[in-house]
Amino acid sequence: MTNAELERTTPRAAAGTRTTMAALVYHGPGQRAWEDKPRPTVQDPGDAIVRITTSTICGTDLHILKGDVPTVTDGRILGHEGIGVVEQLGAGVSEFHVGERVIISCVTACLKCDFCKRGMYSHCQRGGWILGNTIDGTQAEYVRIPHADGSLYHFPADADEEAMVMLSDILPTGFECGVLNGQVKPGDTVAIVGAGPIGLAVLLTAQFYSPGAIFMIDLDDKRLAVAKQFGATTLINSADGHAADRVMELTEGAGVDVAVEAVGLPATFAICQAVVAAGGRIANVGVHGKPVELHLEKLWDRNIAITTRLVDTVTTPMLLKVVRSGKLQPSQLVTHRFAMHDIMKAYDTFANAANEGALKVILTSGGLL
Amino acid sequence: MTNAELERTTPRAAAGTRTTMAALVYHGPGQRAWEDKPRPTVQDPGDAIVRITTSTICGTDLHILKGDVPTVTDGRILGHEGIGVVEQLGAGVSEFHVGERVIISCVTACLKCDFCKRGMYSHCQRGGWILGNTIDGTQAEYVRIPHADGSLYHFPADADEEAMVMLSDILPTGFECGVLNGQVKPGDTVAIVGAGPIGLAVLLTAQFYSPGAIFMIDLDDKRLAVAKQFGATTLINSADGHAADRVMELTEGAGVDVAVEAVGLPATFAICQAVVAAGGRIANVGVHGKPVELHLEKLWDRNIAITTRLVDTVTTPMLLKVVRSGKLQPSQLVTHRFAMHDIMKAYDTFANAANEGALKVILTSGGLL
Amino acid sequence: MTNAELERTTPRAAAGTRTTMAALVYHGPGQRAWEDKPRPTVQDPGDAIVRITTSTICGTDLHILKGDVPTVTDGRILGHEGIGVVEQLGAGVSEFHVGERVIISCVTACLKCDFCKRGMYSHCQRGGWILGNTIDGTQAEYVRIPHADGSLYHFPADADEEAMVMLSDILPTGFECGVLNGQVKPGDTVAIVGAGPIGLAVLLTAQFYSPGAIFMIDLDDKRLAVAKQFGATTLINSADGHAADRVMELTEGAGVDVAVEAVGLPATFAICQAVVAAGGRIANVGVHGKPVELHLEKLWDRNIAITTRLVDTVTTPMLLKVVRSGKLQPSQLVTHRFAMHDIMKAYDTFANAANEGALKVILTSGGLL
Amino acid sequence: MTNAELERTTPRAAAGTRTTMAALVYHGPGQRAWEDKPRPTVQDPGDAIVRITTSTICGTDLHILKGDVPTVTDGRILGHEGIGVVEQLGAGVSEFHVGERVIISCVTACLKCDFCKRGMYSHCQRGGWILGNTIDGTQAEYVRIPHADGSLYHFPADADEEAMVMLSDILPTGFECGVLNGQVKPGDTVAIVGAGPIGLAVLLTAQFYSPGAIFMIDLDDKRLAVAKQFGATTLINSADGHAADRVMELTEGAGVDVAVEAVGLPATFAICQAVVAAGGRIANVGVHGKPVELHLEKLWDRNIAITTRLVDTVTTPMLLKVVRSGKLQPSQLVTHRFAMHDIMKAYDTFANAANEGALKVILTSGGLL
Repeated sequence: MTNAELERTTPRAAAGTRTTMAALVYHGPGQRAWEDKPRPTVQDPGDAIVRITTSTICGTDLHILKGDVPTVTDGRILGHEGIGVVEQLGAGVSEFHVGERVIISCVTACLKCDFCKRGMYSHCQRGGWILGNTIDGTQAEYVRIPHADGSLYHFPADADEEAMVMLSDILPTGFECGVLNGQVKPGDTVAIVGAGPIGLAVLLTAQFYSPGAIFMIDLDDKRLAVAKQFGATTLINSADGHAADRVMELTEGAGVDVAVEAVGLPATFAICQAVVAAGGRIANVGVHGKPVELHLEKLWDRNIAITTRLVDTVTTPMLLKVVRSGKLQPSQLVTHRFAMHDIMKAYDTFANAANEGALKVILTSGGLL
Repeated sequence: MTNAELERTTPRAAAGTRTTMAALVYHGPGQRAWEDKPRPTVQDPGDAIVRITTSTICGTDLHILKGDVPTVTDGRILGHEGIGVVEQLGAGVSEFHVGERVIISCVTACLKCDFCKRGMYSHCQRGGWILGNTIDGTQAEYVRIPHADGSLYHFPADADEEAMVMLSDILPTGFECGVLNGQVKPGDTVAIVGAGPIGLAVLLTAQFYSPGAIFMIDLDDKRLAVAKQFGATTLINSADGHAADRVMELTEGAGVDVAVEAVGLPATFAICQAVVAAGGRIANVGVHGKPVELHLEKLWDRNIAITTRLVDTVTTPMLLKVVRSGKLQPSQLVTHRFAMHDIMKAYDTFANAANEGALKVILTSGGLL
Repeated sequence: MTNAELERTTPRAAAGTRTTMAALVYHGPGQRAWEDKPRPTVQDPGDAIVRITTSTICGTDLHILKGDVPTVTDGRILGHEGIGVVEQLGAGVSEFHVGERVIISCVTACLKCDFCKRGMYSHCQRGGWILGNTIDGTQAEYVRIPHADGSLYHFPADADEEAMVMLSDILPTGFECGVLNGQVKPGDTVAIVGAGPIGLAVLLTAQFYSPGAIFMIDLDDKRLAVAKQFGATTLINSADGHAADRVMELTEGAGVDVAVEAVGLPATFAICQAVVAAGGRIANVGVHGKPVELHLEKLWDRNIAITTRLVDTVTTPMLLKVVRSGKLQPSQLVTHRFAMHDIMKAYDTFANAANEGALKVILTSGGLL
Repeated sequence: MTNAELERTTPRAAAGTRTTMAALVYHGPGQRAWEDKPRPTVQDPGDAIVRITTSTICGTDLHILKGDVPTVTDGRILGHEGIGVVEQLGAGVSEFHVGERVIISCVTACLKCDFCKRGMYSHCQRGGWILGNTIDGTQAEYVRIPHADGSLYHFPADADEEAMVMLSDILPTGFECGVLNGQVKPGDTVAIVGAGPIGLAVLLTAQFYSPGAIFMIDLDDKRLAVAKQFGATTLINSADGHAADRVMELTEGAGVDVAVEAVGLPATFAICQAVVAAGGRIANVGVHGKPVELHLEKLWDRNIAITTRLVDTVTTPMLLKVVRSGKLQPSQLVTHRFAMHDIMKAYDTFANAANEGALKVILTSGGLL
């Protein structure tokens, strides 16, 4: 039995004319290159090889480039978001077929371990966030997706790739970590601290539950203006250090039902603590690099909950349904578009997001291949 | 219409031979006295005057005596736990009758404000924890209970006063703040940090949900021995500073599903952070006097929840049913008994709990009156 | 102490020039009259006397007139919905003041009984649905509201009476019995059987949770057309007896996540059974007069839930917040307007709703008084 | 590549001296035989071949033998419960190894389909209840288990096979369909209609949540006596047709919080409807062969929920933890023991359960092989 018999494959792949591909490679803090790497192949029966047609850059990729994520080592292909076409499949993949367009989830789920069975794919004992972290990622022509049946989603027939790539990470992250953990309910007052892409994803998906008011807090008036367009009811520029006071004033001293931390700093977490109402929730979405001061001396008797979460992407099927119904327009988050081979420029733009007014930067390689 | 017509009253009260009573009075930090005070009278249609037959001392009373609770001022009668007999009722009280034995809740609930309607009696806009705090309390011959319909419970026909007074505060506190907020489920692994009366109340009520293992952590082997009798499956003396390591070892690195903080110190909250499993809950029960360090740099991606709560006493009806069914024996918590007029000695004993092996100290005044 | 001192009252009421009022009175099956009745007075410390400014007619009122509701006896003033101004208050009412505009809830809640404490006001041991049923109702110039603190809501400053009177009954009924019990979630497929006022209230409030599709099923194309305007995604006229088949076809054999019965007949309940997906919910809202056949031989292994509920009106505060935020326009439900003294004509119109295209018929008496 | 390389296997299996095995085979209504059948082999990468060491007979097997389950056809090996040793594994199985002792779940779960991802294994699009139904079952020397990673559980190191085989079906069924769907809470009053093995499994697992009272209702005093030993607080023989009246009397007219139907007949479902309290739940566990009359004319306003469920076995990990902690003794359910080759006698005994006092009948084949 040959290798070709063991795997299902496309004619293109079978032709096998190239064994290399271009990819965005990390070479230690501050060092990245668009260079040639070997094309991935099926290593395990659960693998899929996906040809990337659309990808994007995440704030986490910038953190990696700063050297903040020690699990990422020299030589790693970055990227954990993407849309593509299934090129090859291991013998154990049952849910997808070669030639099918798929959404790649940022979280890899074996579906079989205790955490996966509990819906905590983020802590999958064989997966979790590994793409562009401990294995090669999606900012490349091809990517190998382990445990493909748990880690890919069918691309809806008439959907738009730009919109769908927002389901790889940013929308489930905003929704699960911010909105579901924050338990947003109809009529609730919600404060979102941070109007970057993740905070805006919280803003968009919070509206699934018809909150009464959404306060958006950020230092950048341009981002706040975007938040207004996306449905925020009140904008608060926190540059003056009085954002929390302003929230308390607007809520007549009651505070907010839900405070979402979408930055990852002690100062923004402090705002959440200052504005959460008795009986409210603080949903942390931000990635934190150091401890924060938790004011239990004030909060011990306030009946609050503080939650943390790495996205599980278990809500991707739900999000797909909402997108299909037209109630969510994820492509609102897209501000810039590049060809994949211009990814070095795309990174420059995204790294300079404030000046560029950049939210999500789309990379397409459809034309390339 | 005379006052007597406006209120319902007992013959004893109507006889009105005495207008004073004995009470334990706070006179500033370190100062308490068993002295005469005016007997309370109905001031509002919702009031009940209750003749105390059993009371007890709470750790919070010791905090007050240290001067840690600034809302308590010189001249205040302490105590927020008690069993007694209804002596007089305001015209608006509908659920109780004069002469009836009642359980006094530590939390006063008007039932009408937004918080009460949501079941958050702790934050009642006219009540909450006011007894022995901002109004006179239960360590006296008589007490005035405002909003009596929301703040008293019927004493079960054949019940024991010692057992029932544990429903004033300690059992609902352990249950609501520790067990319900911790979402203890069958088979769960639970760590309780602190084996004082409150930690033991958590231990007793956690068993309503059949956890698989309960680790009890304390510095005091005597208290741990009590915990063993009360159902703890593993005892961990934290004196060596390795309690968290021990928990991780026992759980093969997974940590616990529920960590309950029942002390109120940064060090004990730190243990909870160190032992909570991915997907787990930290339920804070302890009263904290200063901020704690929250390790969001480690916990941001662990899918945990941290909860705080001042007891709402909304579960008192449920607890009464469980006690009645024989599944909970609250009098296990009682170690010492005093006549009410010996309350000064009772305080000495309770203040020296570690040496005395004291958990709950019962005060009875049945014989007095 | 005089009566006037015991109660708080308005100058108008104190003037007391009239002791009678006009009211819509039930005189047995098919018999109603707009006639003089004594003006209500405070009978209990918890009472409020409210001067009605806006009322409306409910389908239940028609049932009463048919003689279907045996608890309603000859001489009863009908009506359980209304907006008005507080005219007099018993001494025990603390949440409202004389002269204040209020929303009258169709359900009376003492707040003190076991059911009220559990949020099941519908089964309040002293209240529940009593207005226009076992005590006189709101289709009159004045009404006595017992347990006013639990049965009235503050009228929002800048609100519209027509919109607000929809919060007396129809909106909380649709929301609690249909949407909350049906557990509508983002992306869900929902079928609502019955496009009358209640079914439309379900339709409006289901959208708080961003379902993916809402199928509206009715015999009447005019009502279906209204449903389309209100947000239904698919209209199904069930006149041909194939509504269930159509739903199964549209869902590719899966059925719907939530089926809401908003009629009250065996045939419409049968549709719900036929279309509910494995794992789905049937939320019964309709008032049933006879048993239905439950196909447990088909449903025992389908993991479904069937719920029933009399509205508790516990969500009125939430609904008020959503209305205030502009996400719900309750006045969409209003099709006809009459002066209160034309209520006999209003009933004729409402009784002939299909031909008249009537949904909610508004009665105003502001100008009258 | 040879077959032996594709699969992992035991030396015993590799030796391959026998290609047949003994099995209990269904041959149409009333016809069963213990006869030779081909030994199963791996057909799919997800398969496991398990050598059965312990099995048992389910009430459903008797239904099949009556011809009540049309999906079961002539020639089918019966049985969906069992403990055994993994003999061979397909290449895609990752969670188990050859030679390992395992618990076989009555429900087969692919883990990958939409239903499995939602935790509804019962409706798995490739599995569900197929063992001893649409594919050969466990009352045999060997069985093929498809989707082994989702359908087997690790056998705890020091456990007892008799106890563990109760986790194949009866305990998760009682727990999920009766206790979880019934939402049993501490202090609740629970009525269980039917004291057969399934009703007793509900009884045992309901106690995880410390209900205040459990009424056991059955026609057979012997079974009721067993229920008493298992923790029922009140026994009600329903032979006189007054069981519902008795429950209402015992609950002072309130009814029960949870009514569990564990028989599958209109009459027993009628008892549940008659005794459920306002706000209560009816959890159906019984397998029904015909429709029941649902009294919506009485229940529409009672705020109840009725649930149905085919066991998902998603709680097996939780049940294993509870068993390990000693809080559940599943072997209490075992009344009779047979060698597997005496299965024809075992069926006779089980079919005559009432006279034999039979609950669960154990079949062991350890000695055989």
